[in-house]
Amino acid sequence: MKAIAVHAYGEPPRVDDVPEPEASGPDDVVVRIGGSGLCRTDLHIIDGWFADAIPADLPLVLGHENAGWVHAVGPAVEHLAVGDPVICHPNLTCGVCRPCRVGDDMRCASGPNLPGLMCAGGMAELFKTRARAVVKLPPGAAPAEVAALADAGLTAYHAVRKALPGLGAGSFAVAVGAGGLGHIGIQCLKAMTPASVIAVDTSEEALKLAVTWGADHEIRADGQQAQRVRDLTGPGADAVFDFVGEDSTISDSVAMLRPGGTYYLVGYGGTVTLPTMQLVLGEITVAANLIGTYADLADLVTLADQGKAALHSSRYPLEAAGDAIDDLRHGRIRGRAVLVP
Amino acid sequence: MKAIAVHAYGEPPRVDDVPEPEASGPDDVVVRIGGSGLCRTDLHIIDGWFADAIPADLPLVLGHENAGWVHAVGPAVEHLAVGDPVICHPNLTCGVCRPCRVGDDMRCASGPNLPGLMCAGGMAELFKTRARAVVKLPPGAAPAEVAALADAGLTAYHAVRKALPGLGAGSFAVAVGAGGLGHIGIQCLKAMTPASVIAVDTSEEALKLAVTWGADHEIRADGQQAQRVRDLTGPGADAVFDFVGEDSTISDSVAMLRPGGTYYLVGYGGTVTLPTMQLVLGEITVAANLIGTYADLADLVTLADQGKAALHSSRYPLEAAGDAIDDLRHGRIRGRAVLVP
Amino acid sequence: MKAIAVHAYGEPPRVDDVPEPEASGPDDVVVRIGGSGLCRTDLHIIDGWFADAIPADLPLVLGHENAGWVHAVGPAVEHLAVGDPVICHPNLTCGVCRPCRVGDDMRCASGPNLPGLMCAGGMAELFKTRARAVVKLPPGAAPAEVAALADAGLTAYHAVRKALPGLGAGSFAVAVGAGGLGHIGIQCLKAMTPASVIAVDTSEEALKLAVTWGADHEIRADGQQAQRVRDLTGPGADAVFDFVGEDSTISDSVAMLRPGGTYYLVGYGGTVTLPTMQLVLGEITVAANLIGTYADLADLVTLADQGKAALHSSRYPLEAAGDAIDDLRHGRIRGRAVLVP
Amino acid sequence: MKAIAVHAYGEPPRVDDVPEPEASGPDDVVVRIGGSGLCRTDLHIIDGWFADAIPADLPLVLGHENAGWVHAVGPAVEHLAVGDPVICHPNLTCGVCRPCRVGDDMRCASGPNLPGLMCAGGMAELFKTRARAVVKLPPGAAPAEVAALADAGLTAYHAVRKALPGLGAGSFAVAVGAGGLGHIGIQCLKAMTPASVIAVDTSEEALKLAVTWGADHEIRADGQQAQRVRDLTGPGADAVFDFVGEDSTISDSVAMLRPGGTYYLVGYGGTVTLPTMQLVLGEITVAANLIGTYADLADLVTLADQGKAALHSSRYPLEAAGDAIDDLRHGRIRGRAVLVP
Repeated sequence: MKAIAVHAYGEPPRVDDVPEPEASGPDDVVVRIGGSGLCRTDLHIIDGWFADAIPADLPLVLGHENAGWVHAVGPAVEHLAVGDPVICHPNLTCGVCRPCRVGDDMRCASGPNLPGLMCAGGMAELFKTRARAVVKLPPGAAPAEVAALADAGLTAYHAVRKALPGLGAGSFAVAVGAGGLGHIGIQCLKAMTPASVIAVDTSEEALKLAVTWGADHEIRADGQQAQRVRDLTGPGADAVFDFVGEDSTISDSVAMLRPGGTYYLVGYGGTVTLPTMQLVLGEITVAANLIGTYADLADLVTLADQGKAALHSSRYPLEAAGDAIDDLRHGRIRGRAVLVP
Repeated sequence: MKAIAVHAYGEPPRVDDVPEPEASGPDDVVVRIGGSGLCRTDLHIIDGWFADAIPADLPLVLGHENAGWVHAVGPAVEHLAVGDPVICHPNLTCGVCRPCRVGDDMRCASGPNLPGLMCAGGMAELFKTRARAVVKLPPGAAPAEVAALADAGLTAYHAVRKALPGLGAGSFAVAVGAGGLGHIGIQCLKAMTPASVIAVDTSEEALKLAVTWGADHEIRADGQQAQRVRDLTGPGADAVFDFVGEDSTISDSVAMLRPGGTYYLVGYGGTVTLPTMQLVLGEITVAANLIGTYADLADLVTLADQGKAALHSSRYPLEAAGDAIDDLRHGRIRGRAVLVP
Repeated sequence: MKAIAVHAYGEPPRVDDVPEPEASGPDDVVVRIGGSGLCRTDLHIIDGWFADAIPADLPLVLGHENAGWVHAVGPAVEHLAVGDPVICHPNLTCGVCRPCRVGDDMRCASGPNLPGLMCAGGMAELFKTRARAVVKLPPGAAPAEVAALADAGLTAYHAVRKALPGLGAGSFAVAVGAGGLGHIGIQCLKAMTPASVIAVDTSEEALKLAVTWGADHEIRADGQQAQRVRDLTGPGADAVFDFVGEDSTISDSVAMLRPGGTYYLVGYGGTVTLPTMQLVLGEITVAANLIGTYADLADLVTLADQGKAALHSSRYPLEAAGDAIDDLRHGRIRGRAVLVP
Repeated sequence: MKAIAVHAYGEPPRVDDVPEPEASGPDDVVVRIGGSGLCRTDLHIIDGWFADAIPADLPLVLGHENAGWVHAVGPAVEHLAVGDPVICHPNLTCGVCRPCRVGDDMRCASGPNLPGLMCAGGMAELFKTRARAVVKLPPGAAPAEVAALADAGLTAYHAVRKALPGLGAGSFAVAVGAGGLGHIGIQCLKAMTPASVIAVDTSEEALKLAVTWGADHEIRADGQQAQRVRDLTGPGADAVFDFVGEDSTISDSVAMLRPGGTYYLVGYGGTVTLPTMQLVLGEITVAANLIGTYADLADLVTLADQGKAALHSSRYPLEAAGDAIDDLRHGRIRGRAVLVP
């Protein structure tokens, strides 16, 4: 079957012909891919950022945002049937360690075990995962439409869910970056909280879209954005979600907070550099976020099914992965790119 | 009356003769001081660190950890009687703003309003505060013994109280710095959680004392302390309380955490410098702490009254403030120094 | 001035001519009434239900849901100005006890102190309250439109706010009774949670209105309502809000819950009679609710100002209180009745 | 092998000779029993209370508090080895439903599935369970000493864990019934909270033991116990744990609560009968409890291993089950009875 694989860091991935996976283990599930999302993390993988932190054998088939239909199941899998529409959680978990027992899937003691980063992902016709990673979609769901919920959406949802206790009536939440993660974050904030949502982005076009996703206010990131958030909110925002995570957005985001507020770090790349005096006097919390749990993904699928969290995506044929990667690198994608076999 | 006042930043404070304060406002309370704690923050004030961030007119009477007996009350004060033993919360609050209405005293919209930093403090014979800042002590309590609960103790308690939901059975908490704040933090952890408590300090003597306050493990800070915490805890600690807050303790403390753990920044001075990649992959939270609420102080007084949080303190006569300051600067004080008029 | 007063339990209240109140105490506030809500609790007072539990001297001016404009303030009141539009929290609190210090207003140690139940209420031209009970309305607000937020709305909001942690994506909340409290509860649920909301009522008309307030499903209370909720929800609802509280709604409401669910008792009148075996096997929680906090009321005012919680009310001239009472007794009021001087 | 089985409701169980179980399924685990606790629930089973609610085929081997050593494992079990000391969670769970995915083990969608109540339990030489129900004990642990943690201890721990957020410094918790569940509950309260613990029991001997387990106050249940709790606590207790659950303890327990307090219903048998007016005016919460989660059991094992939760138990040979049952029926057991093959 066809698959998109990295053969050397720093080089564009290739369209390969690879053997089809089989549901050989008792809990294996092979999914016929309906769509596989392209993520900024894929660029980082291609560029070799993770070569040390998360080593993988090359060639590596990319694709960690996968949805499709059950194609085959191992002998111990009873709750899934061939043909079921499904979306795949990005981490394969053991089910018996303490974190698994309390639903803290990203902290499985046997992991991380991340297809698309550490073993073959879903930018292919078929994708092998395990039963514990599979979330059923509603009957009739279109997997390509929701594939990007599996990482981008999940990450945004998870950060928002952590913030819920602090986002009551009259609160303000800021989404820094109204792109692939941000547009899901904004919708989740509107669906789950009474907070007024402020979208901040460098792009006017992104801000216009943010309003269609429910943002109550939009602010152009022109250097004055932190001041404008404070002007709008009085003491500052209760929560700022930084979907970008570069040096400049970090300091700006923290400057938007009210005393006692929380900075949710979602995107990454830069370095958090903050004087303890500033943090202590403001009693600021910096909360980093790593993807999300299985239950988070199931919940997000429910919100999507209820029409409360729609993905804005552009489809590319699997073979056109190179074009999608170029478009993502050059900021030509609004929302998410999804590869369809 | 005698009072200890800063006349110029960078110079030792002097023993002054100043007018006695009066309970002239409706909610004023004048306290006859039983003891006023000396704090590292006093050194920072003397050294002029806060000259810009928290400006004050000089001369400034120091003393923000104050306890004593009610000496006089304004006409609207009904729940306090002359002679009542009391301890004073360090922030004067308005009582009608939103933060005051939900008990978030440090965030009073009319403040901060900090005696000893912004107006006359309690290193004197009498100290003027306001009714909302006064916590009653149990009948017969000795104010000098508990004065340092008002800031050092309160700050440690507040940080521990925030950490409670994450410190269940089998958890590990680390106290970095077993000195004036740390020894209260360790006792609060033991009184309020089932966590195993690890004390980390550069001083063998401090570590020996930490064990008497209830620490389950002690680790010498010799450069290998983060590794030793990981060896002891398996995945790392659930919570690390950094009572020091210098550059070296910050990076070490974060390195002690398990994935998903929280770093409680209590001391200050250094700069938090952490790559977003490290924070995100570990899903680390950095929670800064600013003193505590009125209810926190009342609770801590209860713990102290129950024998669960004893202050380790050295008393100095008020006139010997200079000696106490020298001893604090040169690391010759275990626990806290308290000035007694 | 004119006022509506109970002279004897069991008899209709009269329109009296009474002296105007004055802001004689330092924290007193006299409010010129814009509207005073009529509540089922007023019927209970008239009927003498509270004669033992909450004794009051007769004649008693009714009215515990009061909004208007500041008419006069005592000398210690600095944050309110004559003419400010305001709404009044129903309990007068001391501000210095432990519950007051943590924002738990209904549990003030010096109370309860309930105008309209224990001393003169606001069914009059002027109403005397205290500064701590006054919530500012946005400039230009129309007090008569929001008066009923002060008890009916506050009570519904408070119950919903307690339920928030259990009402995540995919959850189901049931409002039993879509009348005066229920229609606010439904709107709060929609504004603050992603839960699907099911309205249950005996009246088709009430159910139709419930849909306009945001209910996702409506079920006629015809004896099969518990079964219908289970049919709709699968395992049962996560939370059921009983805005009626009579014997029949209690057993029905509990029968609607999923295992582990919570029954929020808001209305009252009946007796909770539940076998421990049923409660334990279902691990059911019964959470009673008593009005709400000052911050709850301020938050609800914010939701109302944002258009997320609109009161459905019918206005009556103050002198027509008797007609309003008759209409309420005979079920002829949708939403809330408000008396306007 | 020998096993204790119920052949007819209302008749004493018999010592049977039954076939040994085998680890035939992929996730099966056969445990060589070190001890199996006897519980009041066993009396209820024998007496036929559950014949309708939880039907089972007779004869039924009793025993739902089981600990021992791994004897054999199914082919898919990788994390357990023959000889490992283990304790068994009382519910067999599927691992893939929503409740299982968030650690809510008692609400597994495929259950309840309770050995000793619905299929063969552990009052035998060998006991078949499944991998997901097995909690490892520390190396060298003595299973007979901890067997009763698996239900009695787990149930008490679970209720206490739910109460933690409300049991801060200065709070009061009451344990009604200082017997088999209560003595674990008291120890968990002392290990995990700073609350003052009040033991209430009809037996002076039980109260004396309660003090050795850490109770701060003991009160004889002589009809005045609710008044005595209020005298001791001022406004009443923050939490009351009713480990008995009979009509008389229910009303007494609720009468011990402060306004806003929570009644934790743990034991069962009686009927909760409470006027809504009392519940609402006191804003009381009634929280029923059903056993506990897998993580709860693992945590409790940790507390026991740390010496913070010791079981008080009496051992009987397996064949003497009839004597143990008689002793339990007639109140002759302090703590728990454990059957040892």
